Amino acid sequence: MRIGKLAKLMKERGFDGALVSPGSNFYYLTGIRIHEAGERPTILALNADGEFHLLVPSLYENVIGDVPVTFWRDGENPYAKLATIMHGLGISDGKILIENTMRADWLIEINRTVRMRPYPLSVVIRELRMRKDPEEIRLMEKAAKVVDEVFEEILGWDLVGMTERELALKIELAIRERSDGISFEPIVASGENGANPHHEPGERKLRKGDMVILDYGAKWKGYCSDITRTIALGEPDERLVKIYEIVWEAQERAFQAVREGVKAKDIDGTARRTIEEAGYGRYFTHRTGHGLGLDVHEEPYIGPEGEVALENGMTFTIEPGIYVPGLGGVRIEDDVVVEGRGRRLTKAERELIVL
Amino acid sequence: MRIGKLAKLMKERGFDGALVSPGSNFYYLTGIRIHEAGERPTILALNADGEFHLLVPSLYENVIGDVPVTFWRDGENPYAKLATIMHGLGISDGKILIENTMRADWLIEINRTVRMRPYPLSVVIRELRMRKDPEEIRLMEKAAKVVDEVFEEILGWDLVGMTERELALKIELAIRERSDGISFEPIVASGENGANPHHEPGERKLRKGDMVILDYGAKWKGYCSDITRTIALGEPDERLVKIYEIVWEAQERAFQAVREGVKAKDIDGTARRTIEEAGYGRYFTHRTGHGLGLDVHEEPYIGPEGEVALENGMTFTIEPGIYVPGLGGVRIEDDVVVEGRGRRLTKAERELIVL
Repeated sequence: MRIGKLAKLMKERGFDGALVSPGSNFYYLTGIRIHEAGERPTILALNADGEFHLLVPSLYENVIGDVPVTFWRDGENPYAKLATIMHGLGISDGKILIENTMRADWLIEINRTVRMRPYPLSVVIRELRMRKDPEEIRLMEKAAKVVDEVFEEILGWDLVGMTERELALKIELAIRERSDGISFEPIVASGENGANPHHEPGERKLRKGDMVILDYGAKWKGYCSDITRTIALGEPDERLVKIYEIVWEAQERAFQAVREGVKAKDIDGTARRTIEEAGYGRYFTHRTGHGLGLDVHEEPYIGPEGEVALENGMTFTIEPGIYVPGLGGVRIEDDVVVEGRGRRLTKAERELIVL
Repeated sequence: MRIGKLAKLMKERGFDGALVSPGSNFYYLTGIRIHEAGERPTILALNADGEFHLLVPSLYENVIGDVPVTFWRDGENPYAKLATIMHGLGISDGKILIENTMRADWLIEINRTVRMRPYPLSVVIRELRMRKDPEEIRLMEKAAKVVDEVFEEILGWDLVGMTERELALKIELAIRERSDGISFEPIVASGENGANPHHEPGERKLRKGDMVILDYGAKWKGYCSDITRTIALGEPDERLVKIYEIVWEAQERAFQAVREGVKAKDIDGTARRTIEEAGYGRYFTHRTGHGLGLDVHEEPYIGPEGEVALENGMTFTIEPGIYVPGLGGVRIEDDVVVEGRGRRLTKAERELIVL
């Protein structure tokens, strides 16, 4: 039982309790999926002995099973009810872990109702979440297989003349057909739009000579994949071909550097050094990767400050990129699991494909 | 300029500054759309004189125009940079409005870096956001027209045998074809699933005799619509037909009660009393409606505690429902603007349609 595991870790670290709002940690701990709780306070409260109690809007009465729960109706004050729950668990004035993505207005109101000291939940739960068990890896392999298959499918489409938005929608539908849905909105960045790492697909039509960045992911039973490939529609600008070679080498070297015990920042350093030595350091504006699991961005982050030492079962992306304003960009991204060395979960072709 | 309007209101109410993370308020104030900032702190800071400064991950360097901005790179400490910005604006130890949906971990870190007293931004900005100007109303009319058209289209589909999930996807695509996208994931709740007001569409196939709740919305240039209709596939259970009549009457009476100066809770009371008097009070488990605009749920909330007096330009939903476990449910929802009395923005047929 994961609530028990978290409670044990909390006790070791001197935390008295935790308040968890809906999201991946809530699901990880309870197995309960709350669909769009929105602004209505919905909270799992637990103490370091593993006792827990839920606060849930009465709207969800029909989906909550046989667990300790207090419902509140629109018009009632949920924070007063939460204070009662926290008193009952003996955690109303302790060191309390707070779900990182909880809405700030909930936290402000809770701070007014009880005298607790809040800390981000991630500092403790990440130790559980970061190391996937074999069942979790199996689900991630399936999510990765979906995006590989979708890449194969994309290569068969008639891309020239399609808008970025149309292609993003087609990718989304191909993912949804094979999985529980997208893990984030697909990014299609063509031509000069490739210079923005988080470009939102727009009305630009794909043309011959474009380099096109495709960044998309699938979910399988809650677990995410995330892949990026950059393809060329006919012969691209030779500067972009050179950039492609550099990014590919950076990605491969970073992947080869993965092994148990190596720090995340050293993986980032390997990719970054490769790009810096090629003279493009200032055009690599983000970290090399991020952890992947129930969230599409989670720990361990593979950046210059990544002090986490890699352990078996950790899963993350390796996705260096180069973005040159006015010219375009290239990014190559795989999902990797640590098993002694790295093993790629995404296996789609990495060599530059010229369609 | 909306930053200036907010600053003026802040000064009147005795607030020294505001910190706004990406979302509808950020867009409302800056006109800048940040796509999936995720866990990277991205903040608009402003003071009561209308001076402002942005903190933005360097990832977005290419999308920020000519405004006062500090970029931070992965690996740098954004909270130290934010403290500098707040000192520069003279708001590091004052009464500070915090975007309601800001992540709790950002707020915890900011509270460690500066000595401010946080308050939810909504308490002030809602006065601007609640009253739509004519341009905003025009965009909402367009968003409402989209969902009306989609309802017409749905009535022409061959629904029997389709799964809830398939129908939800078809509705989503029909919305996306006509607009900037969905304002929330469509709800399709058929047969006994209709008893859960927030049912997530699943693998249940639509059958003859089902009542089916369809709840979906569109976005047009950031503004949302939100409609619910309940239709019957062949003659439904007569208890559900009776329930339909009650909900329809509750919705119509609540709509007729809308006028300038009436309190939100009185609109809720009108719907609730109608349902209670028919003996179904315990099966109406949510509030009567919610404000609608850049967010699909915003102020004014139309519930038993709604003390807001309606003003011209306010826009919200009226959506009573009855949910009977084991039997099913009915909900009817329209989007309404206050113009002296109420005017419906959604105009799709409300009489029970038996296909």
